[in-house]
Amino acid sequence: MGGRQSVVGPGNPRQAPGTVPVAWSPVALIVQKFGGTSVGDPERIREVADHVARTVRHGDRVVLVVSAMGKETDELLRLAADVSSTHPGRELDMLITAGERKAMALVCMALHDAGVPADSFTGSQAGFLTDTTHGNAKILEVRPERVRTTVDAGRVAVVGGSQGVSTENDVTFLGRGGSDTTAVALAHALGADVCELYTDVTGVFTTDPRLVPTARRMPAVSFDELLEMTASGCPKPAMRSVEYARTHGVRLHVRSAFTWQEGTWVDEEEPNMEQAIVSAVTHDASEAKMTIAGVPDRPGVAGTLFRALADHDVNVDLIVQNVSAQGVTDISFTVPRDDIERTLEETRKLVAEVGAVGVDADPDIARVSIVGAGMRTNPGVAATMFETLADHGVNIQMISTSAIRVSCVVAESQVEEAVAALHDAFDLADA
Amino acid sequence: MGGRQSVVGPGNPRQAPGTVPVAWSPVALIVQKFGGTSVGDPERIREVADHVARTVRHGDRVVLVVSAMGKETDELLRLAADVSSTHPGRELDMLITAGERKAMALVCMALHDAGVPADSFTGSQAGFLTDTTHGNAKILEVRPERVRTTVDAGRVAVVGGSQGVSTENDVTFLGRGGSDTTAVALAHALGADVCELYTDVTGVFTTDPRLVPTARRMPAVSFDELLEMTASGCPKPAMRSVEYARTHGVRLHVRSAFTWQEGTWVDEEEPNMEQAIVSAVTHDASEAKMTIAGVPDRPGVAGTLFRALADHDVNVDLIVQNVSAQGVTDISFTVPRDDIERTLEETRKLVAEVGAVGVDADPDIARVSIVGAGMRTNPGVAATMFETLADHGVNIQMISTSAIRVSCVVAESQVEEAVAALHDAFDLADA
Repeated sequence: MGGRQSVVGPGNPRQAPGTVPVAWSPVALIVQKFGGTSVGDPERIREVADHVARTVRHGDRVVLVVSAMGKETDELLRLAADVSSTHPGRELDMLITAGERKAMALVCMALHDAGVPADSFTGSQAGFLTDTTHGNAKILEVRPERVRTTVDAGRVAVVGGSQGVSTENDVTFLGRGGSDTTAVALAHALGADVCELYTDVTGVFTTDPRLVPTARRMPAVSFDELLEMTASGCPKPAMRSVEYARTHGVRLHVRSAFTWQEGTWVDEEEPNMEQAIVSAVTHDASEAKMTIAGVPDRPGVAGTLFRALADHDVNVDLIVQNVSAQGVTDISFTVPRDDIERTLEETRKLVAEVGAVGVDADPDIARVSIVGAGMRTNPGVAATMFETLADHGVNIQMISTSAIRVSCVVAESQVEEAVAALHDAFDLADA
Repeated sequence: MGGRQSVVGPGNPRQAPGTVPVAWSPVALIVQKFGGTSVGDPERIREVADHVARTVRHGDRVVLVVSAMGKETDELLRLAADVSSTHPGRELDMLITAGERKAMALVCMALHDAGVPADSFTGSQAGFLTDTTHGNAKILEVRPERVRTTVDAGRVAVVGGSQGVSTENDVTFLGRGGSDTTAVALAHALGADVCELYTDVTGVFTTDPRLVPTARRMPAVSFDELLEMTASGCPKPAMRSVEYARTHGVRLHVRSAFTWQEGTWVDEEEPNMEQAIVSAVTHDASEAKMTIAGVPDRPGVAGTLFRALADHDVNVDLIVQNVSAQGVTDISFTVPRDDIERTLEETRKLVAEVGAVGVDADPDIARVSIVGAGMRTNPGVAATMFETLADHGVNIQMISTSAIRVSCVVAESQVEEAVAALHDAFDLADA
């Protein structure tokens, strides 16, 4: 828990008892990340500046990470498509990172207007050294000397999200959602007390509030749980940033920019804390189910298939293989709906090669999952889930489990009912 | 003339007569600069790429300098004004230079589409080291190693105009029109054979073609003449870039991006060339005439006045002081019309201080000038100008001369007639 111990409590441990505090410093260093919607227009930029100004007046030191304004990244990509059919990664990264540059300079100006001295830094200036994988660069090292100097001088540092400079001195983009990663990596490199990720909603919810009105904001969630809560329908930190935070022990606080109420803290599980058996119900209706029937059950077939799909950048998610009967088996898996055609093309080659019966794609499915760290020590949770779904007439097409998650693939038309039923069955509703 | 000798003629001087050329290399290195209008939309960007591709297929090596697209710089400034009333120079430069970044990345993509390998470079990556004067940074040094490496590898280098990195490692903007300076400085640093500045028109004209239909494109003009031809009504390279080119002997070619015809070459005067007595008639209707009447004729008054105006960033142009009579004199000068109020304010203080009679501002004036290197050795040119204006009933309000220019301030309503009459009187019309 490298991120936590530096929160200074009310009192200076080096101070002799009874003496007047001279250099008492309860100042926290906070990394605050605001996404594209939060800086979408001049008025919102000024609101972000006011928010930061209040944090600064409260006595804390702030490092800000900002994304490009609103839909600017999409607009830049559309411009690139209008200009050319060829988009070398190096040039695309140069183009896209212009968005964060604009946002960070504008936020700095608004901060000056709000009476808060501030300096902006590109990824390169903030010390983000990356590899040369344009469009999806990996951070190799963060050397935030200039950011630290600015903060030490009592100024706010505003850092452009999702960008860095490669080992070949080229501008790189960390990918969509990369601003969360920038914020977490910076919080780690600076030894910040907390990394605050601002979203449109007030935290992480037990399920999608648009589907289930009684959905409840979770005061805390563990890294592991959050990582299992993919695509639950409400904004959440990018998975990559949560992985980074878990690896480096950076404490996250997911909260709303439009209220000062506490959001959801993301942290390591407290070993001696009573775990909620089920913390959240999530769902995802963006995928399709692929089923290959009659696959000869011999070693290497699955390996060949999924290597071929990986080589074609198809992002396979759930994989289920039935028990073999009479030497043949069925393999089912889910892929993003956009990848159905590519997947069918590759899969049909394999079907012909290994002599399987055929392949079928079903886009009208959804996945519903329950997530909870307490599952590890509570057998029977999966059974409760299956019973609940059966009680509501929801047929389960595929099942996949991890230590703290159970996912079922169901018909898309039944997903809302499934989510509501499970949210109710596991007592997640607002008290 | 460091820029000229490297144009290699049709033949290799190191080659023995009669032998077959083996490594004959007539390849020229050309810096081409395209302004904001030339890269104003995706279609124009593709046209620029086609133009460059043709230059490359012709066998020349090309370094490209591009401005921000269309009115993007204005839009970024408007955005800054919408966000904040405070615009720290460091942040404004970060914001504005995003425009050239976008343009250079998009031009690179279009070049790839046109089959021309290309890499983009920011001012910093292209080695433009500047001072820390944000918004109007001065180039201290150009170290174009990366540009040279790209060109040596047979690729086109696309450089963002008007930007650099300061001695404090901050992004700097060279100012409006700075892309011309970037192109000239790069041409010098690379030892390029020519710096081509592309505009909407086919070159530099003897006068404004919109005013005088017989205006003629000049095949060549000297640096000195071009520097005197301020604000002639047709696009011309930024003065700063012409100064830079003159100082460092960089040969310029002002031409149109929409035709392959020769434009106007800008070069040193050939010492033994017969000079045109008058090369061009220019005019400028953007200024106002200020007159301070009854100024006590004692040392220091003019110095005090113009120092005060300079301290308030008023850009004083022509200054004329009449001969003193009875110990008082009149001082007239021109300032941009936008600066009238500021100028009056400062000037009234001085009037009170030194006991002058008063100050008067007249915005309805224009300046008409004749420019020609041959004037130096041809007395009587000014007389011809004054006679011509008198013959057309144009009253002269102020006169100012340099070695190769005579300027008269006249009523704005008479400027078109004055320009046409002078263009005719000095035989500048198309033959």
